[in-house]
Amino acid sequence: VLTTKIIAKKRDSVELSAEEIQFIVSGITDGSIPDYQISAWAMAVLCRGMNPTEIATLTECMLNSGNRLARCSNRPRVDKHSTGGLGDKTSLILAPLLACFDLDIPMLSGRGLGITGGTLDKLEAYPGYRCDLENDEIEQQLQRIGCVITGTTAAVAPADRKLYALRDASATVPSIALITASIMSKKLAETLDALVLDVKWGSGAFMQTLADAKRLEASLVDTGRRVGVITTSLLTDMNQPLGKMVGNACEVNESIDVLKAGGPTDVLELTIALSVELLLSTKRATSASEARAALMQALRDGRALKRYQQMIEAQGGRYLESLPLAGQHVVTAPRSGFVAKFDGQSLGHSVVEMGGGRRQQLDPVDHRVGLEMLQKIGDKVDAGQPLVRFFFDGSATQIESIARQILAAVSLAESPPQAVSLIVNQT
Amino acid sequence: VLTTKIIAKKRDSVELSAEEIQFIVSGITDGSIPDYQISAWAMAVLCRGMNPTEIATLTECMLNSGNRLARCSNRPRVDKHSTGGLGDKTSLILAPLLACFDLDIPMLSGRGLGITGGTLDKLEAYPGYRCDLENDEIEQQLQRIGCVITGTTAAVAPADRKLYALRDASATVPSIALITASIMSKKLAETLDALVLDVKWGSGAFMQTLADAKRLEASLVDTGRRVGVITTSLLTDMNQPLGKMVGNACEVNESIDVLKAGGPTDVLELTIALSVELLLSTKRATSASEARAALMQALRDGRALKRYQQMIEAQGGRYLESLPLAGQHVVTAPRSGFVAKFDGQSLGHSVVEMGGGRRQQLDPVDHRVGLEMLQKIGDKVDAGQPLVRFFFDGSATQIESIARQILAAVSLAESPPQAVSLIVNQT
Repeated sequence: VLTTKIIAKKRDSVELSAEEIQFIVSGITDGSIPDYQISAWAMAVLCRGMNPTEIATLTECMLNSGNRLARCSNRPRVDKHSTGGLGDKTSLILAPLLACFDLDIPMLSGRGLGITGGTLDKLEAYPGYRCDLENDEIEQQLQRIGCVITGTTAAVAPADRKLYALRDASATVPSIALITASIMSKKLAETLDALVLDVKWGSGAFMQTLADAKRLEASLVDTGRRVGVITTSLLTDMNQPLGKMVGNACEVNESIDVLKAGGPTDVLELTIALSVELLLSTKRATSASEARAALMQALRDGRALKRYQQMIEAQGGRYLESLPLAGQHVVTAPRSGFVAKFDGQSLGHSVVEMGGGRRQQLDPVDHRVGLEMLQKIGDKVDAGQPLVRFFFDGSATQIESIARQILAAVSLAESPPQAVSLIVNQT
Repeated sequence: VLTTKIIAKKRDSVELSAEEIQFIVSGITDGSIPDYQISAWAMAVLCRGMNPTEIATLTECMLNSGNRLARCSNRPRVDKHSTGGLGDKTSLILAPLLACFDLDIPMLSGRGLGITGGTLDKLEAYPGYRCDLENDEIEQQLQRIGCVITGTTAAVAPADRKLYALRDASATVPSIALITASIMSKKLAETLDALVLDVKWGSGAFMQTLADAKRLEASLVDTGRRVGVITTSLLTDMNQPLGKMVGNACEVNESIDVLKAGGPTDVLELTIALSVELLLSTKRATSASEARAALMQALRDGRALKRYQQMIEAQGGRYLESLPLAGQHVVTAPRSGFVAKFDGQSLGHSVVEMGGGRRQQLDPVDHRVGLEMLQKIGDKVDAGQPLVRFFFDGSATQIESIARQILAAVSLAESPPQAVSLIVNQT
């Protein structure tokens, strides 16, 4: 009866009290509230919304439904969270890079599902890489190297895991309140001092419009600050893949290029911009330009790459300068024109179809397949010029089908499209 | 996946196609859609609404999830549905009254739950009265007497029964679309030519405001007409109980008074007004005044009462001129004033507490308890004058508690309140 009353209250657009939110989260965690009431509550939250106080309370209740990482050093502890996008490999670079600045980066990360790639899947392209570190292993590695990228443990925010499974089937995923609580409860379990959020917008992002992305950004930042973590954010473009590579091993290879201060400029620029935020938040630098120079130096002199290699090896991986990829094929422009648009959903699906992503949670992943985007939005191409290279060992029919799918995802136009900034709200 | 897409569509305020609505209703009926998706869908329907086409489709799909009564005579077939209110005993009078006009009235009715009384509970005050007639028994009785009041069979709109149980727990009861489909799918299973709806508004009704009641009325009438049934409606006052009696046996006794052309004027007036609608819809009369005169004549000359007695006996009941009641107690006015308001919820709860209603679906009902409202809104009372009589065989403590509860439900004011018409939209 109490559960029904709380659902009815939210249904009628009334603010829920902290006790009521705690009651729901406890009931989700211990299984005392049946699924059909949880999903109705979630739909009411989606339709009627939650105010910032309710969202912060929901986040804290979900955080407290599980354990947090213990403090294990005097170094400031920081992390980055991205709302996800094609080719986003910044985590792989940012974690070892910031570890060079006497910061701890305890990244609890996830696997890919659908078109969204997962940081853990990328790192598992290294034979032997372990994503199942126990809490004491995480602590020891942080003390020794300063960075860890491993899977979220079962003890972190169990309410979120339970709720997330229901949200997927009940069409309640795109709720700002529920997304915020889900992201932030897991990130806050890392016991952070500072967090930077990379909120993506565009055709390849969860939030397709800038307006929606801004609403999510405001909610995430507000929640982080309400629970006492220094939280900043960047709003970034996901109308085309970040960098050139989309896949697992190929993204790792591109990350290593960036760790050597090379690679595509957008990946380098975004990773530096996010890292600048965290150096400023932790007072490791007093200005953006100072932070930027220090970060570039750590890439150029090989300290970041060395830290990266240490992390891979500490987690059981066999480090390689370059991971092997599947056989190459090229998609060419059928006519001349300007690259105007990419269908991010469709590009992502092509990677899943090649075996590089998951349809279902336990599907195996082929790390060797992927895409290399040879042109960016605004580039002029001639007929017959290569557009996209893809790595795939399929049959001739499969290869042809993937090529067709990739080609259909690229729009060419007569005139150059309007330029979009990579970072909307650059500090 | 299809279910999730349909939920998402409604969540995003998009009209559902007939195929999508059929998919959901089939999934509810055969159990292939899990409860947590049904409840999320119901909440999305509540929050986003459905247009008249969707509501009519939903109604027809729910109707077709089960069986309908077969045609068994050439007489026009009619019924009345009330959205429920305290002291509403019009069904008991209307069914045998209309049967006198060569009409069939196959009332499939329900039991009470919470403060809402049930027509079946009232009739079961007659020892032996059966509410579980089989289809062939219903047909035979219609052919012989023209009226039946029995329980909805399990074969009628099974989708509604399944959905209703979930709606209660998931706080999705007050959806115009779902209420309409629930009411109309069950009524249309009677295979009617004409239907009149009594939509109540006020403190003792499900719809507390006139505006909400009007929205529900429009949806019910529109749906009836879309599926080809001549549908009319009255919007009536439920800010105070209808008639004087609230309970089971006591309402039956009051109905018999009305069947003798006596009883409280509001019960008589409303029953006649509803019956007029059906005589006009079936062209049994050419004007309201002609219909009214004919109906009063059937009450005055005893035909309606005789038909009522035949129906009670045909369904196994032992007919009695007056059913026995529990011991009487009187609540008096603590001061002088005008009766300004009744708290219908609270009056209803007092009947439940005396044992005259159900808290849970299978609770037994004490037919002998109830209330007699000795004053109507607007009446002037002096201190010490009787307000309400109640029938109850409880302990002294219980009797005192009920008396206190009833007294608290009556508001007295210095000046007379504004008069409210019993029937808002009288033809």
